[in-house]
Amino acid sequence: MVGIDLRPVLYIVGALVSIVALAMLVPMVVDFAVGNPDWMVFATTSALTLFFGVLLILTNRTSEIALSLRQAFLLTTLAWVVVCAFAAAPFVVSQTRLSVTDAFFEAMSGLTTTGSTVIAGLEGLPPGLLLWRSLLQWLGGIGIIGMGIVILPFLRVGGMQLFRSESSDRSDKVVPRAGDLAIAVAWVYMTMTLMCVAGLALAGMSLFDAVNHAMTAVSTGGYSTRDASIAGWDNPAVEWVLVVFMMAGGMPFVRFISLARGDAGPLWRDTQVRWYVGFLVVVSVALGLWLAHTADIDLHDAFRLTFFNVVSVVTTTGYASADYGLWGPLAVAAFFTLTLVGGCTGSTAGGIKIFRFEILFMVLRVLMVRLFSRHRVLPLHYNNKPVDADTMVSVMSFGFVYIALIFILMVLLAALGLDLVTALTGAATAISNVGPGLGPIIGPVGNFAPLPDAAKWLLSLGMLLGRLEFFTVLILFNPAFWRQ
Amino acid sequence: MVGIDLRPVLYIVGALVSIVALAMLVPMVVDFAVGNPDWMVFATTSALTLFFGVLLILTNRTSEIALSLRQAFLLTTLAWVVVCAFAAAPFVVSQTRLSVTDAFFEAMSGLTTTGSTVIAGLEGLPPGLLLWRSLLQWLGGIGIIGMGIVILPFLRVGGMQLFRSESSDRSDKVVPRAGDLAIAVAWVYMTMTLMCVAGLALAGMSLFDAVNHAMTAVSTGGYSTRDASIAGWDNPAVEWVLVVFMMAGGMPFVRFISLARGDAGPLWRDTQVRWYVGFLVVVSVALGLWLAHTADIDLHDAFRLTFFNVVSVVTTTGYASADYGLWGPLAVAAFFTLTLVGGCTGSTAGGIKIFRFEILFMVLRVLMVRLFSRHRVLPLHYNNKPVDADTMVSVMSFGFVYIALIFILMVLLAALGLDLVTALTGAATAISNVGPGLGPIIGPVGNFAPLPDAAKWLLSLGMLLGRLEFFTVLILFNPAFWRQ
Repeated sequence: MVGIDLRPVLYIVGALVSIVALAMLVPMVVDFAVGNPDWMVFATTSALTLFFGVLLILTNRTSEIALSLRQAFLLTTLAWVVVCAFAAAPFVVSQTRLSVTDAFFEAMSGLTTTGSTVIAGLEGLPPGLLLWRSLLQWLGGIGIIGMGIVILPFLRVGGMQLFRSESSDRSDKVVPRAGDLAIAVAWVYMTMTLMCVAGLALAGMSLFDAVNHAMTAVSTGGYSTRDASIAGWDNPAVEWVLVVFMMAGGMPFVRFISLARGDAGPLWRDTQVRWYVGFLVVVSVALGLWLAHTADIDLHDAFRLTFFNVVSVVTTTGYASADYGLWGPLAVAAFFTLTLVGGCTGSTAGGIKIFRFEILFMVLRVLMVRLFSRHRVLPLHYNNKPVDADTMVSVMSFGFVYIALIFILMVLLAALGLDLVTALTGAATAISNVGPGLGPIIGPVGNFAPLPDAAKWLLSLGMLLGRLEFFTVLILFNPAFWRQ
Repeated sequence: MVGIDLRPVLYIVGALVSIVALAMLVPMVVDFAVGNPDWMVFATTSALTLFFGVLLILTNRTSEIALSLRQAFLLTTLAWVVVCAFAAAPFVVSQTRLSVTDAFFEAMSGLTTTGSTVIAGLEGLPPGLLLWRSLLQWLGGIGIIGMGIVILPFLRVGGMQLFRSESSDRSDKVVPRAGDLAIAVAWVYMTMTLMCVAGLALAGMSLFDAVNHAMTAVSTGGYSTRDASIAGWDNPAVEWVLVVFMMAGGMPFVRFISLARGDAGPLWRDTQVRWYVGFLVVVSVALGLWLAHTADIDLHDAFRLTFFNVVSVVTTTGYASADYGLWGPLAVAAFFTLTLVGGCTGSTAGGIKIFRFEILFMVLRVLMVRLFSRHRVLPLHYNNKPVDADTMVSVMSFGFVYIALIFILMVLLAALGLDLVTALTGAATAISNVGPGLGPIIGPVGNFAPLPDAAKWLLSLGMLLGRLEFFTVLILFNPAFWRQ
């Protein structure tokens, strides 16, 4: 612990914990309004959480608010874990009476916008708890965007240096003026959520369900208010509205700032957005044609099914409108593959992310040409910025580590007795922050509750590692990090 | 086809085809000796093959024997495919009466030393055909070693430039003096095979079985003369002899040249060998302890089972002494993971290969440190050679592409109706050149015969891609390769 001034780190953690405490007032008010005694649970946990948050703020006040590299790394992991612990409290003491393991899993799945759940019988839950789950994803979502825009590019994790803004390029500190950007993005996020609420209400959802699903769609989280997820409504209009907002949730939010100012150019010219939209459309159409052909469904229904579920998995949302596990081997293999792809960086989506595949293709093209004409120098550019060798190595090793960690997590889960398909797809869905896996237990119509406790802790760790893009967490286990 | 002088390429292909023709005389003689009419099949296919081989030699004689880069790329893929086509012929016309698809699959599986088979009822086959299968793996094995020592380092595929010898470093051509090295390696290979024959015969195998298994163990191929593979003997001595020679088959053969001259130093000091042996021992012991603990087997038997099957899969041999698919979820997940690891480069083994994991770990360590102390420069060295950025990018992208191709192959196999486990492990076992997959169809006690024809062609392509380390084949589909 020597050598790192913890005060600014703990100060910000305190601020974040206080925000969680204030957020708990929302389900408190709702439960109070409908007369559910759980309002006292939220009042109590909110008070306790606020106490710790304010305590951290008061005991760690410092004039130096800009963070050093080490402080930023430490903050990122610490904030996520501490916030998660407080966010889990209502699940333990409210009428869900979850074990500490289940509560932590549910909170981690919420804050990382994964969407795997251990709660069955959602229809019987009081509104406060349903809203709390959705709020966790919504808050997690904005946290992830902020992290993707400000923190990770500064930390240069997994090739994220490609997304450094000019202002941060010349500085060794996270600059406070990143705050302006954060406010603009928060407005976009808020506006998008309200638009989604309106869309879902118009499509026929109750206002309460619309608010919940708007929060979990825009954040690509995937928690629902019904056990059957979106299949529980069987409403095409609801599904298409959600398709639009899930897709938006997987796009780089900074581009929406220009869009809000009336300039669609930056969004449209972003190669990541083009690949992302193109990929979603091509896969959905191909799988839709195949489904119509093999399963005797008319083409319109087939597209409704494939667009919704493909967008849900690729954006790492994890809603289900049908059990694609029953669509035959091709669909099963395809959805497993889609679990890993992910959305755009700077969005709420997880996964390997589109820009890394872009860099992979560019690197392969250059490597291939250089294999037979040695003396050609082919500089790489991404969104008009040069890509140096360091960045290439970062991106490529990110892909390698991504898969290696899925295999390690799979072996550990299998050691706990999980079958191959559950262990493999469970590991993949956790690290990619998608939500459902495959197979009868954790498939799109399944639930994570039957898994052993140890598996839930491992999957929680997987979600955290995936969400923070590995290196941010792993670096803390390097003794050299703590020296000097 | 413009711009590349095909004559030296076709000349060498002709020479290789002629070697295959001469090799066919071995099963011919054996079948003739036991009075099986299949000797005429081998006589005929040998004559035809020799005719084409000599024709290619005579029509493409050239004074320039050194190959350019493009010629070397073209030769590598072309030689493998053409030789495979001729090697498949005896399977079609002999009493196995395989379809063209099955015959090509069996020959490709043999020459790439994969060891997946479509033939059931091996015990009823005439000796000539059994010997032909073993010979294909043995010839494939020496071809792979030669390729790993001379061709791939020259082509710089997947980071193989790390294994360039000093003499080749300053040349733009594959130098003919590599021939000296090839002869020394061939002697080592031959000696090792004879030692294995002696060991297996002493352990109780018939001479015929000993010869066959010696050829398929040293080449880490895995074809057996019985349907039950090595389980058909139930002989611990046989299994331990095979463990030793499979392990040797997965080590860099150039190190054995020094060993044969009485100097074990280069073998022992090679970090790849240390990691490889260490990995095999740790995994076998860990899995053995776990098996003894969970399956009520005594520790001695457990180690016998785990050492044999772990070494068999990691060296990409693919013999089975038991159905590890029945050992429970951990074993299943572990063996699936082991399928990808592979042996040392410059050996007969396939897979991602140990040195790439070494480079990955080194790169990660450097990346991690550089994340928090930006200005440190940490040069990488591998076996006392500096590792430049190009090499790092090559190695990391190799790992990324390896997994991506397994996923693509899995989706294609699933589109043909194969279930997730068969499609996934089938893709992995083909690309890694291991042999068996998992599940009831292609597991260690299964057979590839029931798969649809299209799946067999896809798997054959997978074996070829994996064996030639992808880029060697993929580069031929780049139009720029053919220009200039």
